[in-house]
Order: sequence, then structure tokens, then C-alpha cells
Amino acid sequence: MNRLTRRELLHGFAAAYLSGRGESRRSARGAKAEEVDASALRERLEALSRFGRPVGGTFADGVSRVAYSDADVAGRRYVMDLMRAAGLEPRLDPAGNIFARREGTEPSLPPILFGSHIDSVPSGGNFDGDLGVLASLGVMESLSASQMRTRHPLEMAIWSCEEGVAFGKGLAGSRIAAGDVKPPDMDQVWNGLRRADAIRKIGGDPDRIMSAVRPKGAHHAYLELHIEQGGTLDRDRIPIGIVEGIVAIERFVATVTGVANHAGTTPMPERQDALIAASHLAIAVREVVTGEPGRQVGTVGQFDVSPNAANVIPGSVRLTIELRDLSTEKLARMASAIRGRAARIASSTKTTIDISPLSSNPPAFATAEIQAAIARASDAERLDRTRLPSGASHDAASMAQLGPMGMIFVPSVGGISHSPKELTRWIDCANGANVLRRAILEVDRL
Amino acid sequence: MNRLTRRELLHGFAAAYLSGRGESRRSARGAKAEEVDASALRERLEALSRFGRPVGGTFADGVSRVAYSDADVAGRRYVMDLMRAAGLEPRLDPAGNIFARREGTEPSLPPILFGSHIDSVPSGGNFDGDLGVLASLGVMESLSASQMRTRHPLEMAIWSCEEGVAFGKGLAGSRIAAGDVKPPDMDQVWNGLRRADAIRKIGGDPDRIMSAVRPKGAHHAYLELHIEQGGTLDRDRIPIGIVEGIVAIERFVATVTGVANHAGTTPMPERQDALIAASHLAIAVREVVTGEPGRQVGTVGQFDVSPNAANVIPGSVRLTIELRDLSTEKLARMASAIRGRAARIASSTKTTIDISPLSSNPPAFATAEIQAAIARASDAERLDRTRLPSGASHDAASMAQLGPMGMIFVPSVGGISHSPKELTRWIDCANGANVLRRAILEVDRL
Repeated sequence: MNRLTRRELLHGFAAAYLSGRGESRRSARGAKAEEVDASALRERLEALSRFGRPVGGTFADGVSRVAYSDADVAGRRYVMDLMRAAGLEPRLDPAGNIFARREGTEPSLPPILFGSHIDSVPSGGNFDGDLGVLASLGVMESLSASQMRTRHPLEMAIWSCEEGVAFGKGLAGSRIAAGDVKPPDMDQVWNGLRRADAIRKIGGDPDRIMSAVRPKGAHHAYLELHIEQGGTLDRDRIPIGIVEGIVAIERFVATVTGVANHAGTTPMPERQDALIAASHLAIAVREVVTGEPGRQVGTVGQFDVSPNAANVIPGSVRLTIELRDLSTEKLARMASAIRGRAARIASSTKTTIDISPLSSNPPAFATAEIQAAIARASDAERLDRTRLPSGASHDAASMAQLGPMGMIFVPSVGGISHSPKELTRWIDCANGANVLRRAILEVDRL
Repeated sequence: MNRLTRRELLHGFAAAYLSGRGESRRSARGAKAEEVDASALRERLEALSRFGRPVGGTFADGVSRVAYSDADVAGRRYVMDLMRAAGLEPRLDPAGNIFARREGTEPSLPPILFGSHIDSVPSGGNFDGDLGVLASLGVMESLSASQMRTRHPLEMAIWSCEEGVAFGKGLAGSRIAAGDVKPPDMDQVWNGLRRADAIRKIGGDPDRIMSAVRPKGAHHAYLELHIEQGGTLDRDRIPIGIVEGIVAIERFVATVTGVANHAGTTPMPERQDALIAASHLAIAVREVVTGEPGRQVGTVGQFDVSPNAANVIPGSVRLTIELRDLSTEKLARMASAIRGRAARIASSTKTTIDISPLSSNPPAFATAEIQAAIARASDAERLDRTRLPSGASHDAASMAQLGPMGMIFVPSVGGISHSPKELTRWIDCANGANVLRRAILEVDRL
């Protein structure tokens, strides 16, 4: 990835904001009124990247803007300033989610909701979440610039704490909005920080946390633009992905128990080597997952060996098995096949293997009508499109619990994400923003 | 393993020592003068087990008597008191090794050296090392009781720091005696303890550490009685093992490098999963080692996965490969075969695998004449015997560098060692001590 020049970095609004001089009107800078301003989108992605950037680094060095950190607070302030400059009034719910509303022509209709998040994983990239948030703002601005009114009110959202780094995935702001919260959750502690204090830090109100829950039907539809994170669109050179749904995730922990013994004095035939059994199991997981057609994935990502010394035969291994697919039937079938393989491995290695469920996330299907609206929007923008599942979870999975949902993906170069090397080309960012804009207008007609 | 009764534990000398009343003459308690006193041997193993025993535990709960610990110092004091009670005068070398000499009839001859160690691994057993030390003392006593004089002087040794827990294997007392030491080694720090201070703590003199080096030919032969630690003798119900040699140990570190990526968004065919490659490699090590006849062993004992998270495809794995055999040619052949397998695994998994040497210990062969002497001793005791390699290292490996060496093994129940479950039957302890006694007399004739 090329380094940006100082001129590029400091061009336009970013420089103005960072030197405190406020923003000029975007539409005055040459973007067509019926399009999202691509250069403003880029400048803002670059400017936002400074909040949480490694010391002495550039845009290409990625970002560490973990939820509730000082960088997160500063980034949120920056985006809220942008919203105010665009004539929007940011409003915080008790979970610290940020909303801003643009009224429609029919006040009795529920709003069309769209947005994403700006918190990141440690050493993450500058597109995951950020693109969806800043594109949503760009959509609001372009509609205002062209004086276009929708029937439904429009509401953009910046969800707090999406990445599940602080306090775990279960307490993401969008999951709170979907009702997945109890008052005692506010007492959780992470890195010495109480959840209630973390939420206060970003302007939320933990004492009223239950008021952050949004009722079913509170919005007409939820739309989210996001980078794919996988490499399918980039590999096939397709600019727009229409998400069919967000996969279900089943996690298990397998405990392989053998007998720890002296690596010098224990003959090979007498060993009960937990690492050999665990190695066979990791390979079996891959074989089962690749054993039938489809886009399902399965991963053994964590592997803890005991006692883990060069001169001791491993006595136990604890490993995680994660399976993802849109079809829960397929997940159940794969889990059952893995259990069968594990039993045979245990028998042939003289070990025991226990496989226990760790967590289970159901799939979140994108609504057919919203997928069709995104397809029409892509066609209107003359952009190739394909349908694909989302292997990663998103705020959209929470919103699918409350009403119709759709997601737009744009290509991630090389499929890399959660890394400073995460990259989506500027043209793909702009294309995604314009498809989001058109899709909102399509959904407004439904 | 049965728990010992309080009566058994407190019987005889152990009780006398622990209550400070000193020791009665062993030969007065019924042992035949031409045999090592089996009941004294048992009582002393039980008494020594108290130094480092878990609080509230019994003999069956094992021992943690790590070198240079307070328990090690107390255990050494106990054994030195036993030596004095037997009319021997313990002498410390600058490394803290303990020696005691019994003169022979020909003062110009070099001594026959024999012994073992009393330090243990954490949560170890009560036979590893202890048996060889206390049997050596029993041999000295039985020779005195029967007023038997050898031609060669006899010298028993209690080697310091054999287990390689503190400061690593490289600084065992017997290795220092074999010349494997430099003055700067005294500055090494382990758990906040300087090596020099550790050696002072057990009565050594780090400022004179080079004087602990024993010249080649300083002894006529070195003999060591030890538990097998493996399960061969126990399985085949053979009471005496004649060690052919101590195996060479080759250790390697393999670094498997793939690409860490999102476990949800990376399709299976595009993965470069370091854990899958490492699993194939661990299995390949086992297949190569078991692929030809012989007693060679190979172990992948350590496995460090990065980033080691359930939702991230492993980007790298660092693992150890350890190979042991008496034949260095066989070790080289196996290492070469493993490298070949690794190259094919790397290719098929789109990873890279680097295998680098970590350490290399040469084999230490037992001298044929000493093996023959042990065989004659076993026959005289009417005990079945077999020849086998030692898969574990011992102080005898160091002593083999200085002169003729031989080792006697006795059965470990179930092959378990370095564990509180380590057990050698009392009859096997006594048999081993008597074969050591006869072997010393046989070697005295050489």
C-alpha cells in the first residue's frame, strides 16, 4: 500500500478540522449533487484514522481505537462535529449509540436506519466500520445538497463497542439496542473499568440502560455498508456484494486428555499423546468442513498444550472449534461428523476427547426485498454485483432482530481485515456509498 | 499406590533421626552383613521424602525438592548426617557436589565412584536419584559391616542440581565436574537467584568453581543405580536393567508461518493455516520415528500458536521436535526424513516451515567391561537381567566423559516418573542396591 503524501493527508476538510477552522460546504467542491462526495469521504476516512494511530505512523499503519478508549472518545467527537456541520443533531442513547435524524415527508412512518461503528480491534484497519459511518453521513449530505426528501424519516447510527474487544461481543451497543442487555451487565469489569463507567465515558447513561432497547418495528429497515473482510469480491473483481445473511457461529471447546510422561523413557507404542490426538482432530475439522460443497468455514484457532515442555509428552490439549454457515442444519451435521471423527481419534490414540458447546450465535438473514432493493441500486449505478454470505458478524445481525435488514459489501484487497494492511480502494468506497444512497431511496418506496 | 501407615513411616531410623536421637547400627537390626540393609534403605527413602513433601501429604504425595531450595538444603543435611553416622566424612567440592571416601588396600589406585542425586523436579517422586544415593550409602555400610576391603578406594557422590530445573540442565553438578563450566556461568540468574549465591547456599564455593572439574582418569569407573523411569522392565517383569548407554538427544525448533486471517471471512481454499500445517508436522514426526524398528523416540512437546484466538486463523506455530536414540546416524536419518515431510507439508498447506537445531547432546555409551561386570553381579544375585538404553539423561552421562561408566536400572511401576505416582517396589530397590554392591566388587577386580 502506498504511503499518502502530506499534501494528500492534509487536503480539504481534514486539515481544516485539525486546525480548528471548520468545514466548507461539500457540494461546493465539485461533487455532483446526486452522488455522495467521494473526496470528502476519503478525507474523512484519513482524518478519522488519526484517532488511535500509532505514534509516528501514517494512515497505512492502521489504527487502535478500542471501544471506550480515549481515541474512541476523540473519534466519536470528530464524527459528531462532522454531523453538526452537515446540519444534523447527534443524539446519544443510554448505551452511547449515536443517532441523527433527517425528517421525511410522512411523519407517521418509521425511519430508515443505516450506519455502522467506528471502534476498532487493536492494530486494526481504517475501513472496518468507519466506511459505513462516513458513507452514511455522506448520503445525508448528498440528499440535502440535492434537496431530495424521502417519505420515511432517515436515521443514521454509530453503534458503540462493535468489535467485542472491551467486555466481549455480548455487550455491543447494537445488541443492547436489540434488547440483549440486563441492568446487572453494567457491573461487568474489563481491564479495571466498570461497564457503567465505560458507558458514561462515551456519554451514555448506564442507569437508564434499559431505555436503549428499541422496540420491534421501530424502523422501516436497517441498511449497512461494510467492507467484505473476505477476499471473494476482490478476487472476482466485483465491486458490490449483496449480503444474503450473516452466518451462524457455533463454538466448541475440545479437551483432549492423554497421559503426560517422560519424552525419553516412554516407548512410542505406550504413549497416550494428547498433542498427536489434537493434531488429528484439527485436521479432521478441516476435512469435515471441506468435505461438502458450500461456503461454510471451520477453524481451530486456539490450542493450549499442557505441560508444553520439549521433554514431556503432552498430557492434555484444550482447543477451540468454530463453525460458521448460514444453515444451522449444515452446522449441526458438521458438528456431528466432527464428534464421530473425534471418537475414532480418541480410540486410536488411547486418549479421551470431550467436546462441549462454548457459544452459539443464530444466523441473521437479510430480507429478500432489501436484497432486491440493493440489486436495483447497483444496477442503477451500473456496478456488477454478486450475492454472498457474511462470514463476520455485524451490527446488522442485531438489527435483523427488530425488522427488515440488508447489507452492502465492497471489496477488501486480498481479503485482509483486522490488520493495518486492511485496504479498500477509494473508488470502491465511493461506489459503496452511492449504492447505499440509492438503496435507501429504493427502500423508501417499499 | 497404597498409603503408608504411620507406623511404617515412623519405624526405625527415620523416627530416630526426626526426633534427634541418632542412629543405631544397621547391621545390628538383622540384615545379613553381605547384603545392603533393605529395611534401612526403605526407612531412609521414606525419611528423605519429608524434605520437600507437600504440606499435609504422605510419601505417596511425592516431593518438590528443587535444587538450591530450602528443602534441598535440608535433604542434603539429612544425608550427610547419615554418612557421618556410617563413619564416612562428607566433603563438598566447589560446585556443591558431596563426596565421601572409603580407603582401599592399594592407595595408588584411582577410586571407584558411584552415586546419584537427591534434587527433584517440582511434584516429582521419591525414587528418582534418591534410590541411587541411599543405596550407595548402604553399600558402604554393608562393606564395613562385613569388614570387606576393596583394592580401589570407594567414593560415593551426591551430585548437585541434576534435574535441570534451576538454571537449566547445562549447569548440573556432574557436568561441572566433567568440565562443562566457565566462571561467567556463576553470574546466571534464575528466579532472582544468582548462580553463585545458589551454590553458596548449598555449601559450594563459586569463586573456586574451576577446581570442581575432575581430570580424565580420576576414577577407575563410575557406577550409578537409578530407576528406569520407562516401563520396559516393569512390563517384562525383569528386575535388573543393564544400561547400554544414554541416548543422544537432538532438539529442533520448527517455525510454521502461514497468514493470520479472519476465521469467518476467509474461505477454506484460500487459507494459509499454520496450525493445520503444524498438526501434519507433529503427526509426521511420530510416523517417521515409528517407521523403522528400534527403541528411538520422538516427541513434539511444545506448541505455541499465534495469535491463539478462537476466531482467528493461526498465523504461526512454534513447536519443538525432540529425537532420542543411541545411534546418531539414526537420529540424522530421522531428522532428514522429517525435513522432507515438512517441505511437502509446507507446499500443500501454502505455509513455510523452518526447522532449526536447538540443542544436541551426544550419546554416552556404557563401557562393555562395566556392563559385563553388572551382568555377573546380577547372575550372582540370581536376578533376571536385560540390556536397554536409557532414554533419560543422568549424571552418568557426564561421568562417561571422564572414564569407564555403567548404570543399573530397576523397574518403575507403569513406567511413571517425574510424578508423585513414581513408584519402585521395595524389593526392587533392595535388589538394585545389592547388584550395585556386587558390581562394585566385580569392577574392583578389573
